[in-house]
Amino acid sequence: MKFKTKSRLNKISTLVFDVDGVFTDATILVTEDGSFRSFSMRDGYAVRMAANAGYKLAVISGGKEESIRTRMRAIGIEEVHLSVGTAQKAEIMNEILTKWKLQEEEVLYMGDDIPDLLLMNAFAVFKVCPADAQPEVKEVAEYIAQMNGGNGAVREVVELVMKAQNKWMKQF
Amino acid sequence: MKFKTKSRLNKISTLVFDVDGVFTDATILVTEDGSFRSFSMRDGYAVRMAANAGYKLAVISGGKEESIRTRMRAIGIEEVHLSVGTAQKAEIMNEILTKWKLQEEEVLYMGDDIPDLLLMNAFAVFKVCPADAQPEVKEVAEYIAQMNGGNGAVREVVELVMKAQNKWMKQF
Amino acid sequence: MKFKTKSRLNKISTLVFDVDGVFTDATILVTEDGSFRSFSMRDGYAVRMAANAGYKLAVISGGKEESIRTRMRAIGIEEVHLSVGTAQKAEIMNEILTKWKLQEEEVLYMGDDIPDLLLMNAFAVFKVCPADAQPEVKEVAEYIAQMNGGNGAVREVVELVMKAQNKWMKQF
Amino acid sequence: MKFKTKSRLNKISTLVFDVDGVFTDATILVTEDGSFRSFSMRDGYAVRMAANAGYKLAVISGGKEESIRTRMRAIGIEEVHLSVGTAQKAEIMNEILTKWKLQEEEVLYMGDDIPDLLLMNAFAVFKVCPADAQPEVKEVAEYIAQMNGGNGAVREVVELVMKAQNKWMKQF
Repeated sequence: MKFKTKSRLNKISTLVFDVDGVFTDATILVTEDGSFRSFSMRDGYAVRMAANAGYKLAVISGGKEESIRTRMRAIGIEEVHLSVGTAQKAEIMNEILTKWKLQEEEVLYMGDDIPDLLLMNAFAVFKVCPADAQPEVKEVAEYIAQMNGGNGAVREVVELVMKAQNKWMKQF
Repeated sequence: MKFKTKSRLNKISTLVFDVDGVFTDATILVTEDGSFRSFSMRDGYAVRMAANAGYKLAVISGGKEESIRTRMRAIGIEEVHLSVGTAQKAEIMNEILTKWKLQEEEVLYMGDDIPDLLLMNAFAVFKVCPADAQPEVKEVAEYIAQMNGGNGAVREVVELVMKAQNKWMKQF
Repeated sequence: MKFKTKSRLNKISTLVFDVDGVFTDATILVTEDGSFRSFSMRDGYAVRMAANAGYKLAVISGGKEESIRTRMRAIGIEEVHLSVGTAQKAEIMNEILTKWKLQEEEVLYMGDDIPDLLLMNAFAVFKVCPADAQPEVKEVAEYIAQMNGGNGAVREVVELVMKAQNKWMKQF
Repeated sequence: MKFKTKSRLNKISTLVFDVDGVFTDATILVTEDGSFRSFSMRDGYAVRMAANAGYKLAVISGGKEESIRTRMRAIGIEEVHLSVGTAQKAEIMNEILTKWKLQEEEVLYMGDDIPDLLLMNAFAVFKVCPADAQPEVKEVAEYIAQMNGGNGAVREVVELVMKAQNKWMKQF
């Protein structure tokens, strides 16, 4: 890992995630009565450990389904913004920075597709993406995970931060 | 890309898609109470961008489930033809050409299996298919996507057209 | 293809399939209210063509869910035996042979796991299996598909028979 | 296989499994009304054979959904512990050892992630994991399956034990 990445990781107090393509493989199962997303229990374990260790956590999603909130709360993320249009993503990030009194450098943001670009370009947050993110996002990412969205990318990034700060596996 | 493909792409005003095997990986989840299809959010984003940019969009599917219409409308496709038998696919294409006063050359059609062949052979539309289309369809396709159905093939083709016409990422 | 396989294929009038691991990837989605199986539309298309062309079709499954019957009927298979224990599979095959007045050589049987072995060993049917069948089944199979269960193995085998008999793509 | 593994396998009378990441690929499908897990019928067949052959079977899961119990009972596992926190896993193992009057050496335990580590380290059970277990678990595992969780890892381990004891395919 490059020195710059290491020094960036040391400052992170807050993890903010897009949902589709990050916590999922960017697919959605659709039926008459609603829709399903597939989440990774291994991602969930790492996020819960991050919550226990005191990291501030949020998701900003274009998805409308309340089931996203249910899942996120189950793994320890209380700050859940749904139905967020592309143009609003940066606004929500601003609200979070203000509400939690954060420096931009303290925040890691993980996204996978073009709707994440405006936000990623607007803030000096640490920009990460899954291995299978769209090329436009990979271009601006400071760290590209080795794992795909929905298949361990979130786990990898949470471990990366917590290990850099010597907080991984300090409790269970 | 071959010159012929480029010049073909410049004329496209209308995108018509089969659903199963194109917007999906050709599988369907079946239970007592109905069935589910898995759609890609990344395909959905690109289709919505095409709708916003003024492309005419339609799907012609043998599938019967109204959930297909729900999903297609959510991503900006209003012209949704369901329960279309193999022999009728060409009829529906004819109706669309007449209704929207289109030249055949303006239309891109994306299909993956033998029920799409009659339509593909009957019209001078630009014929495309996913990487994992059946061999009979790949034989007549003028462009074979690098991505599989349900896993980015639609996104790839929408970007192809919009980039050729300098319309990709001109708005979000 | 070996000469023996070719001459075997010419005699086939009847296709009998196991369901799990053949029409599916051997997984089942389980929730409080029931279970889901994922079926391939491309398999479905081929089976419907076989039904239209006059082949006799049956499935023999250990699965209990009526949704299997619903799906099989939708693709043209009326003869659906569910909740069939390992020991009963050969009995059911016997009933089918008697009911439809078949020679064993006329029948193709496709299975993937040990519960299919007793049946496969008891009859002079043409034994086939998906690429990802269990090793014990691959050992007795006369033809091993290149495709996996739930991902085109049924399609491959239906095409194999119909092409050998010059019946594939004679109608749509 | 190493001599040590062989001699260990001969002593196994009891198989205890984690669920997520062992019987599944560690994903969960989430909707408003509940959640789904995908189980392998091939794993299920092997577990049922183990139950028939007299092995004692149990699962210890952090999962809360009663559908886990339903599926486990369907394949012959009556001893189902749900909603078990990381710290409690070892307690439950202790209860099982006492209740069934077992030596630790008689027990095989299969897990995939960090919540399994405390249990794995606390007992002289035979420790196994799927091919795609987290690295921390692979480090302590005495046998790493070639198959992934939810895709045959349980089958592989059940066959391993039953073949070592000459009990595989002695009945169907």
